[in-house]
Amino acid sequence: MDRRKALKLAAGVVAGGGAGIITLSSAFKTEAQPLSPGANPEYKNTDSIWRYSLLDPELTAELAYKDYDHGSCMYATFKSVVSQLAEKYGEPYTSFPFHMMKYGHGGVGGFGTICGALNGASALIGLLVTDKTIRDNLITDILRWYENTKLPEYMPKTAIYDFLPPPTITNSVLCHVSNTNWAKKTGYKVNSLERKERCRRLTSDVAYQVTSLMNEYHTNIFIANKNDNETVRECMSCHGEQGKLVNTSGKMGCSSCHTESVGHRIFADIHYKIMKEK
Amino acid sequence: MDRRKALKLAAGVVAGGGAGIITLSSAFKTEAQPLSPGANPEYKNTDSIWRYSLLDPELTAELAYKDYDHGSCMYATFKSVVSQLAEKYGEPYTSFPFHMMKYGHGGVGGFGTICGALNGASALIGLLVTDKTIRDNLITDILRWYENTKLPEYMPKTAIYDFLPPPTITNSVLCHVSNTNWAKKTGYKVNSLERKERCRRLTSDVAYQVTSLMNEYHTNIFIANKNDNETVRECMSCHGEQGKLVNTSGKMGCSSCHTESVGHRIFADIHYKIMKEK
Repeated sequence: MDRRKALKLAAGVVAGGGAGIITLSSAFKTEAQPLSPGANPEYKNTDSIWRYSLLDPELTAELAYKDYDHGSCMYATFKSVVSQLAEKYGEPYTSFPFHMMKYGHGGVGGFGTICGALNGASALIGLLVTDKTIRDNLITDILRWYENTKLPEYMPKTAIYDFLPPPTITNSVLCHVSNTNWAKKTGYKVNSLERKERCRRLTSDVAYQVTSLMNEYHTNIFIANKNDNETVRECMSCHGEQGKLVNTSGKMGCSSCHTESVGHRIFADIHYKIMKEK
Repeated sequence: MDRRKALKLAAGVVAGGGAGIITLSSAFKTEAQPLSPGANPEYKNTDSIWRYSLLDPELTAELAYKDYDHGSCMYATFKSVVSQLAEKYGEPYTSFPFHMMKYGHGGVGGFGTICGALNGASALIGLLVTDKTIRDNLITDILRWYENTKLPEYMPKTAIYDFLPPPTITNSVLCHVSNTNWAKKTGYKVNSLERKERCRRLTSDVAYQVTSLMNEYHTNIFIANKNDNETVRECMSCHGEQGKLVNTSGKMGCSSCHTESVGHRIFADIHYKIMKEK
């Protein structure tokens, strides 16, 4: 925990110049934001009861590693954090229907969309952080980190399957792309025990990361927008809300699908010229 | 409701030959499967209490349409169903932290992955259906339907924004692709009120669909695998678990990203030959 935490804090200081440093504000209370009862009707049963307290990322990663086999990636990530809060606070955490989170395996019912560990981490952020901008910043942070980090790096004390998965950068938050890239780069089959061990450890990495993030948020040291994606920024300067085209939305890395897209191949020269002139 | 229901049942009968008709079995009780207390430790607080009862899809769609502005697509889809169950059964539905589901907007925190309405529908299925195979079948059914259906088709009694969004087939369950395709086909900007109204109505369509599906499941008439995707079947015959390559997993429509993929362009002739020989 110390090494990673130190690196993260150091990175935060370095990135601080360009990144949006979140300072103390009303949105950064040390408990999850309590809501005025009745202010938002949909919160009437939950206001100020979904609290967070500092957790040990290393222990959380270990719990996620063990939980993986009971409900896969989304379930394990979410439960690894919330089960500890249940132990500390009791209700309403104790009654949370953890089984619900099993739907996220394999990118939602095996469909290959968002990595289940990330869906679980995002659901957790959704549960604990009620401010939309901060919630989106936290989610963006962990999804960007996942896209651009060589994973898995988690080392279990006792391996469930004794195999050291080669770490790779996935360039995508989609389960389908993440697994396919890993299988192609390493030569292992997607239905192999090796790939499963990769996802088991990846789940622990995400559990570790979301716990670190929640600790940072909880102690007012979370730095937003520190994980840039230059390609996305470049593409969105034309296609996004501030661009000329305004014909797309999203923050996912573009290049895993769009390097050879029809539009950019046909108009490659024009596009290249536009980009050069910018 | 009647027209759609009739069409759906008729389609079910027609598709029955090739589709996996789910017959009465221990996994198809008329209540969500109760679990033996203590059999699965993670269910200890939830066994047999997350029940479903038949709901009116039309009313659910209407609720989703109104809920959209309070928390976007995932939140509205999920809440439109669960709030009705809360009204009928009280706890534990009443205390469900609906606010959590706001994280799914714009494909998870605006990242553009899975359409939030589908994430909400899948979470709902995850909450109410504990058998993995059936859960995945239900999720696959609604995601395939979304990919291949001209949407939105919901017509509100009173429009929040008075605009009839042109319906399109998205060919993708990803928010980013779904919105981009719609913007390109219709000419509306992704940040426009028109696009927002499109998503508001699309959310109602998904809420309608998942309610219909849950009704079918609840009354033992759900038919699995009735929404085929020929391209996926073809691609996975080589790349999937039963193929020679076994280098990918997922069920998403392939062609929205892969028509011009590097591999298939370079090896187009070889690939075409293989496909012809099959």
